[in-house]
Amino acid sequence: MKADHDQVTRLLKTARGQIDGILKMVEEDRYCLDVSNQLMATQSILKKANRMVLKAHMNSCVRQAVICGNPEEKLNELAVLIDKLAD
Amino acid sequence: MKADHDQVTRLLKTARGQIDGILKMVEEDRYCLDVSNQLMATQSILKKANRMVLKAHMNSCVRQAVICGNPEEKLNELAVLIDKLAD
Amino acid sequence: MKADHDQVTRLLKTARGQIDGILKMVEEDRYCLDVSNQLMATQSILKKANRMVLKAHMNSCVRQAVICGNPEEKLNELAVLIDKLAD
Amino acid sequence: MKADHDQVTRLLKTARGQIDGILKMVEEDRYCLDVSNQLMATQSILKKANRMVLKAHMNSCVRQAVICGNPEEKLNELAVLIDKLAD
Repeated sequence: MKADHDQVTRLLKTARGQIDGILKMVEEDRYCLDVSNQLMATQSILKKANRMVLKAHMNSCVRQAVICGNPEEKLNELAVLIDKLAD
Repeated sequence: MKADHDQVTRLLKTARGQIDGILKMVEEDRYCLDVSNQLMATQSILKKANRMVLKAHMNSCVRQAVICGNPEEKLNELAVLIDKLAD
Repeated sequence: MKADHDQVTRLLKTARGQIDGILKMVEEDRYCLDVSNQLMATQSILKKANRMVLKAHMNSCVRQAVICGNPEEKLNELAVLIDKLAD
Repeated sequence: MKADHDQVTRLLKTARGQIDGILKMVEEDRYCLDVSNQLMATQSILKKANRMVLKAHMNSCVRQAVICGNPEEKLNELAVLIDKLAD
């Protein structure tokens, strides 16, 4: 993975910490909307990590495959990804 | 634009027809959630048209730019697009 | 519909104007990503109109149904709406 | 929280397990798009948990507040939630 490993790891650990927190909230029978807000906040962190991963992928893997004259597979993957993201 | 012009045009005309319908619904003071449902249905049609446009773009413009040894601009555009879609 | 009719109408007419513009872009065979960007901009306008409609629905229809002691149908509709929006 | 605690807990533990898996993928320098796909799969699980939480909230907390003649706060919260979800 070409994205900054430390940055992505930090986001993932934050997301994991939040999930641990939500598990505790469920156990303590906390208020629905507080649980919901934490779930959405965790989704946002994972989204941020994903954008970081995809940005580095574009700038690195895809670019290199193109330079090396071997872009076919990368372009097919991107077409699938974009179709998924645009849905 | 590389997507099938007839298909995209048909979707756009459907969306326009729906917007005309919603304008009429507003004028006739129809029920909020009926208006909302039509608004979301129209968004779905535009989303479908967009996926069609992007799919053809990947298969055609991007591929050709790569084959022609001039991919730089296309790849930069895709990176921006993916970051926007993943948000 | 309880949202400001003028505001919603204005947004809908803007969206319709943009769709007319996109139809012309397709006819003139304009660049895929320019078409795509316009499609996404139009989706944003419809989203804005929808938020306006839903906000007024909550503040008016739902509230009144509750005050009038007849909230059952409104609450069921909201549950369906929230499940759709959260998907 | 009114949603089935066991079901929500199971989803959260699955999501946590996936995040642990992604952390390992990052450490092992696995392929960007494999990491990205796992990130999106984890977002989907959290979304599913959130829908479950919100559904139970509607059917339970909101309904009860209305029956008990104290709906004001719940309706305000819902208006904020819907505006956030529709964005």
